[in-house]
Amino acid sequence: MEEKEISQAVISRLPRYFRYLGELKDEGVERISSQELSGLMKVTASQIRQDFNNFGGFGQQGYGYNVEYLYHEIGKILGLDQTHKFIIVGAGNLGRALGNYLNFERRGFIFQGIFDQNPDLIGQMVRGLPVHPMEELETFVRENEIEIAVLTIPKTSAVAVADRLVQNGIKGIWNFAHVDLNLPEGIQVENVHLSDSLMKLSYNINRFMQEEE
Amino acid sequence: MEEKEISQAVISRLPRYFRYLGELKDEGVERISSQELSGLMKVTASQIRQDFNNFGGFGQQGYGYNVEYLYHEIGKILGLDQTHKFIIVGAGNLGRALGNYLNFERRGFIFQGIFDQNPDLIGQMVRGLPVHPMEELETFVRENEIEIAVLTIPKTSAVAVADRLVQNGIKGIWNFAHVDLNLPEGIQVENVHLSDSLMKLSYNINRFMQEEE
Repeated sequence: MEEKEISQAVISRLPRYFRYLGELKDEGVERISSQELSGLMKVTASQIRQDFNNFGGFGQQGYGYNVEYLYHEIGKILGLDQTHKFIIVGAGNLGRALGNYLNFERRGFIFQGIFDQNPDLIGQMVRGLPVHPMEELETFVRENEIEIAVLTIPKTSAVAVADRLVQNGIKGIWNFAHVDLNLPEGIQVENVHLSDSLMKLSYNINRFMQEEE
Repeated sequence: MEEKEISQAVISRLPRYFRYLGELKDEGVERISSQELSGLMKVTASQIRQDFNNFGGFGQQGYGYNVEYLYHEIGKILGLDQTHKFIIVGAGNLGRALGNYLNFERRGFIFQGIFDQNPDLIGQMVRGLPVHPMEELETFVRENEIEIAVLTIPKTSAVAVADRLVQNGIKGIWNFAHVDLNLPEGIQVENVHLSDSLMKLSYNINRFMQEEE
């Protein structure tokens, strides 16, 4: 495969391909054409072919792609053939929800620990693991070679905690704190700003209702 | 303001402008130029001006935008000057986390009820409201004129529940179920597929590590 820079827009679409192919595989479908996939996913067949060409095209034959092969290749591109150890910083409702989400483990994301500064939460169990105090964060990340930290803490503390994580070798941050983090190059950040998403929904509802009036 | 179709890409950026302007307002900043906002937000000044021009430009003077005015105008565009009643379907960890998230109320999103099919959860309290059985869903949505439903249920039941909601007048669905919903035109859907986001992070970590080797 040629090494080239692939746009974040293409990368954003890969997990969705992976999800649809996983379902097709589970349903026993062996081959699928870009036209059929296009119909299922509501994207154009040419978009699909263009996206796949970034990765060498996955060898579409006259009668389509091999579903199992395509599923595994996209999984490999997404790094899902390896395991990734993660911790959660913030043991509030959202942090605990993410810790209990079993699907992540199926994809190779291994929940290793959860941290909070609230003394009332320390020692409580989340999916079999105790909540650690924040003082143990640095040592824990280094000793367990944690790759990913999930931040489910208020925005006021998120920037400082992210810096501590980066200094101790974290590779990526999955950021639910409602603030944009500016981290050194090479540290990957994926933001999930839930309020932003809700506001976008609100905009679209309002807009549609105005058009109807 | 001229009525024209505004791209979803522009709309996706509005909540982030709103967030930054809210912080500037709280810090007592009165005016800001597109250049200054550009430096803060790490987007180009011309992108900011282009985005704002979709809404008439917000009257930038020689020395910049009025922060408070801009904050309120973008809030109005996002529908945040009105209240939006929502329910949550799925009282698992994630549903309860979202029910307890107080920030939504500050933005005018009013939590009205939560539903689950698990008899063990029914009657449990989430932020002062009892978990209702699924049988009450239709009546509740109609009688309380619920606008938004948050789906935090498995993908296997999400499609059928979404149909029931649409038939009873829901206007928008904030979808955390790991499936794409195909709903009638006019029903707004905003997807938060958490695994997709985590996989994108995994891709970027892997990619960077390969480049370093």
